[in-house]
Amino acid sequence: MNLDLRDYAVRTDLAVESKEMAETVHGGPLPGVQEQVDEHDGIKITRLDVTDENASQQLGRMMGHYITLEVPGLRSQDTDLQEKVSAAFAQEFSAFLNKIGINNGAKVLIVGLGNWNVTPDALGPLVVENVLVTRHFFELARDQVAPGYREVSAIAPGVLGITGIESSEVVQGIVERTKPDLIIAIDALASRSLERVNTTIQIADIGIHPGSGIGNKRRGLTKEILGIPCIAIGVPTVCYASTIVNNVLDLMKTHFNDESSDGQGAETKQIMGLLHDLSEGERLGLVKEVLEPLGHDLIVTPKEIDEFIEDIANVIASGLNLSLHEAVTPDNVASYTH
Amino acid sequence: MNLDLRDYAVRTDLAVESKEMAETVHGGPLPGVQEQVDEHDGIKITRLDVTDENASQQLGRMMGHYITLEVPGLRSQDTDLQEKVSAAFAQEFSAFLNKIGINNGAKVLIVGLGNWNVTPDALGPLVVENVLVTRHFFELARDQVAPGYREVSAIAPGVLGITGIESSEVVQGIVERTKPDLIIAIDALASRSLERVNTTIQIADIGIHPGSGIGNKRRGLTKEILGIPCIAIGVPTVCYASTIVNNVLDLMKTHFNDESSDGQGAETKQIMGLLHDLSEGERLGLVKEVLEPLGHDLIVTPKEIDEFIEDIANVIASGLNLSLHEAVTPDNVASYTH
Amino acid sequence: MNLDLRDYAVRTDLAVESKEMAETVHGGPLPGVQEQVDEHDGIKITRLDVTDENASQQLGRMMGHYITLEVPGLRSQDTDLQEKVSAAFAQEFSAFLNKIGINNGAKVLIVGLGNWNVTPDALGPLVVENVLVTRHFFELARDQVAPGYREVSAIAPGVLGITGIESSEVVQGIVERTKPDLIIAIDALASRSLERVNTTIQIADIGIHPGSGIGNKRRGLTKEILGIPCIAIGVPTVCYASTIVNNVLDLMKTHFNDESSDGQGAETKQIMGLLHDLSEGERLGLVKEVLEPLGHDLIVTPKEIDEFIEDIANVIASGLNLSLHEAVTPDNVASYTH
Amino acid sequence: MNLDLRDYAVRTDLAVESKEMAETVHGGPLPGVQEQVDEHDGIKITRLDVTDENASQQLGRMMGHYITLEVPGLRSQDTDLQEKVSAAFAQEFSAFLNKIGINNGAKVLIVGLGNWNVTPDALGPLVVENVLVTRHFFELARDQVAPGYREVSAIAPGVLGITGIESSEVVQGIVERTKPDLIIAIDALASRSLERVNTTIQIADIGIHPGSGIGNKRRGLTKEILGIPCIAIGVPTVCYASTIVNNVLDLMKTHFNDESSDGQGAETKQIMGLLHDLSEGERLGLVKEVLEPLGHDLIVTPKEIDEFIEDIANVIASGLNLSLHEAVTPDNVASYTH
Repeated sequence: MNLDLRDYAVRTDLAVESKEMAETVHGGPLPGVQEQVDEHDGIKITRLDVTDENASQQLGRMMGHYITLEVPGLRSQDTDLQEKVSAAFAQEFSAFLNKIGINNGAKVLIVGLGNWNVTPDALGPLVVENVLVTRHFFELARDQVAPGYREVSAIAPGVLGITGIESSEVVQGIVERTKPDLIIAIDALASRSLERVNTTIQIADIGIHPGSGIGNKRRGLTKEILGIPCIAIGVPTVCYASTIVNNVLDLMKTHFNDESSDGQGAETKQIMGLLHDLSEGERLGLVKEVLEPLGHDLIVTPKEIDEFIEDIANVIASGLNLSLHEAVTPDNVASYTH
Repeated sequence: MNLDLRDYAVRTDLAVESKEMAETVHGGPLPGVQEQVDEHDGIKITRLDVTDENASQQLGRMMGHYITLEVPGLRSQDTDLQEKVSAAFAQEFSAFLNKIGINNGAKVLIVGLGNWNVTPDALGPLVVENVLVTRHFFELARDQVAPGYREVSAIAPGVLGITGIESSEVVQGIVERTKPDLIIAIDALASRSLERVNTTIQIADIGIHPGSGIGNKRRGLTKEILGIPCIAIGVPTVCYASTIVNNVLDLMKTHFNDESSDGQGAETKQIMGLLHDLSEGERLGLVKEVLEPLGHDLIVTPKEIDEFIEDIANVIASGLNLSLHEAVTPDNVASYTH
Repeated sequence: MNLDLRDYAVRTDLAVESKEMAETVHGGPLPGVQEQVDEHDGIKITRLDVTDENASQQLGRMMGHYITLEVPGLRSQDTDLQEKVSAAFAQEFSAFLNKIGINNGAKVLIVGLGNWNVTPDALGPLVVENVLVTRHFFELARDQVAPGYREVSAIAPGVLGITGIESSEVVQGIVERTKPDLIIAIDALASRSLERVNTTIQIADIGIHPGSGIGNKRRGLTKEILGIPCIAIGVPTVCYASTIVNNVLDLMKTHFNDESSDGQGAETKQIMGLLHDLSEGERLGLVKEVLEPLGHDLIVTPKEIDEFIEDIANVIASGLNLSLHEAVTPDNVASYTH
Repeated sequence: MNLDLRDYAVRTDLAVESKEMAETVHGGPLPGVQEQVDEHDGIKITRLDVTDENASQQLGRMMGHYITLEVPGLRSQDTDLQEKVSAAFAQEFSAFLNKIGINNGAKVLIVGLGNWNVTPDALGPLVVENVLVTRHFFELARDQVAPGYREVSAIAPGVLGITGIESSEVVQGIVERTKPDLIIAIDALASRSLERVNTTIQIADIGIHPGSGIGNKRRGLTKEILGIPCIAIGVPTVCYASTIVNNVLDLMKTHFNDESSDGQGAETKQIMGLLHDLSEGERLGLVKEVLEPLGHDLIVTPKEIDEFIEDIANVIASGLNLSLHEAVTPDNVASYTH
């Protein structure tokens, strides 16, 4: 993530968080943003369409379609829930492909962005290790491939510090040689709130843009650059210390406003009243003013990141395998991942 | 770390942080606490002696000797600095052994506490993998061991979830059979402030107590339990989200008090004035009241934890090798670690 | 494995291989050895009982009960077959516990011998990471543990070069403190023939003896030493280069004897005739005479060892979980391993 | 390695082994092959030039320049020796670049072939992780890069089973986009004799050809395909079981011929006489006839492969860093690898 270039007030890669903040500022639903929410089995699915330029600017998000799966239980290492999330992801992803006009025969290149040596940035490479690739069978003997499989390849292009080459250049080179019809790019993201870390999956048809994700990207992966559509799948795996603090201050406002005034000291009530009058930007400014000179505005991840990242990479890989190949079903999906 | 049993107001395993907080409450230096500070080459060394029961209670720390090395530059992966820190650690550690009366021939068992599958908790096991062990040579042919080596063994006893056995029981069993004269236990700790994470090493002659460190310990490793002295070496590798927030609020107080009032909005000044009147405990109480019901009070670690933990484990292992064996010198120390 | 101390003529840790060789020498079935063979689903199960001292000496094996599962298909990474082997292992293991008089309530300590940094020696530690441990729940609140679980703990004691302590000493210390009723020790073995590597599991009630396995053991894990029974589970993961050569020469004898003499050159026939007249020991002596001065008698493992060892560790861990806990069933066993 | 396509009689990727075998057949030095041998510090350096088509066919090797470093001591984990080998490698490699006309400013793409999940095939990816890459600094601000550095990038393209894309296609795509002047491809090889495994480094200006190395390559990396020179660096990390046996039979011939006939049984002498009359091909044919139907002709690697591969990858990465950048010197080279 190129920190200097990012809109400091935001520090989130999640459209649902941008929407929350924008609505707070705007004082209600934004025109040009359609939202639909489903909730079942502990999985909250939000489908957001950003349909005009004005809404895009207010959100600080590209125009496009966004699907978010929020599953607080994903942190509890419940294998049954993980299977349900894979299935829900697959269903949403298939519908998403339909909605944006990708047909069943489309050849897919899955791109796992990020640094495999940095656990919270290793999501993309881990997904690549676990998706079913088939392109080589099609290349060898297309007519002998069993029905129900689609042509899929996958690459983890690495990061600048390891390769000296921007991941977008690696991907462009491969796209030019192998001619896929669609890119699916997996990336680790930053979130505004700690509770969304490792519990949220975002799907969007906007590609990858410089300054998104937690890796070091100076060029993006977009239809403009690559000539083919690029769907981005992201999971927030980190937060800035400053956004944690800011988010807590925000929660404090709400929390103490909701309470009856009994049992609260006069000082607390006064603080909360004052916090109420500060804008999101002013508050974050205060926090940064304190943290930055001390070098304290670290990017952090939950202590259990090793397990979380493996679990969620497996959920996404299984979901992609289910969605991309008819021959992969809930009964046999486990044997396709490692 | 047994969270339920911990004193919530503290949430630090570092004596220097306890001292800071206690002095704020007390309004100045505590009787019964001697402090000596050295600073050179970017390394700040604080030697704290807690010499009476009263001071111990005010600090919430055992009576004993504490040495803290604070090295903000350790996060920058500077190999020259790492070598300097190893050397400084070795010098302090040797002096510490003298001070508490451990002689040169004392047989040492190094215990690496923590869970090797959880990166920020893997410090102890990583140190064990990198220290020079010699006990088997002494057992085989004591008179043929070259001079300059001490008898050292090492064990990573694992965590309850993997072994079903408390680490203290594993260590007790080994102590009874192998009869070392001294335990050196390495453990990952929690810190109150994010900037001390992965930049601070604490040495103390107090052993390991239930509720310290980030692992799951219900019994400790102490002279009372083991019959031999136990020196604890710890590095904070995690923080609670709530202590980050609390610490920032604290920094905000100081920060805005120090500033001239020019350029600050009236609201900000008022907030800061009010924060000033809250005690540490009241503030942390507020933060927890907000975070806990939401399941937000996660334990976090910097995103670069993989590299940090390897670097600092290597620093400690090299420092121990230098300190425990005369035959290990700055010129050959690198060839003893992996 | 202490190479210098091993009987060079044997170089196998498998009773079935010792039996094959002894029968060749003896010219038929050995008195004092009972054998029963079952074969189904690609799994060959051999149950050997060595019942008298004379047979023991001829085999070069301890008196006791040996079960061997041979599954050539285990190298093909077939998850269905792996599940079948786990189930077959569990069934044999349960019967074995009954046969040697271990009751259902017996408290078990699982010991994973070997070096986790050396892939073909990492079998034991990998099994330990994947077995279900329960002892800590019993210790905390014995009466609240759900029925169907047995008290199980597990430890990987490491190797001399890492700990400076013999694994038998670590285990003895833990046994004395935690008082299990039974040890189950997992160890990687050496085989005489390459095709048994990673395809064979041996269960025996004889414990672990110095010079068995591929690790560095100078003391064993036996009932005599520990005071409780010790069942050894082993998988050959390596061969000596010399035994591969020797084994091939042996196969050549059989192969060319079986063939009609048509199509064989006179020289070949002569060679084979001569090989026929050499004893096993003479042949191996020839091979060693060639290899040893050149430092060629390396211990080797198949190139795919990383995958093989993970798969077979998982098979054994699942089999132990099924066998030791009634509450673990084929339907839920997968959720107990990692 | 595409086993079906390989010349079965050879099964080596080392030119020095091909030469040995060809000379045995030919009965002396081959015309069209120049050889120069140096030996110092336990490092044997052989420089072979295959200068005409006839010699190329007799050797079964491409025309070109081959340098081989043989260092039996590399298996002993001696860090001093490793540094010497890095320095010798760097010196040879620099001279090699000169000899084949690569100038100092040439931009280099280092390609690490092989599968990072299969330890003996992970050499290339491990080297990529440890070489100094600089291309991104040149791209960002070419005029601000300190003198003494060359433009270097690096990629590990993965294997078909993970990506679905041939590594040569990945590399071609990257070459077309990033326009390097030279490819240096690192690959794990197969050797004919076990003692060369992990002790030998081969440098050749012939590129990578289908059927070389232990990975799965159907297309190569050659000047014809890529349009720029490709230097191959290889280390044998595996052997076929059949070549081990064959090699031992060969050694037996020599061994027993050298001995006085005293102390040898008549049978042994007769066997050896007969072996003498078999050609290399006949012998290997015998061995295969025995091993293949049994599925015994496994590819094997020494048990200590984990350590060996890390050590030798580090030697090569350090050697490349020394050779490619003037600013990297023996005094600072260690700080450039991980």
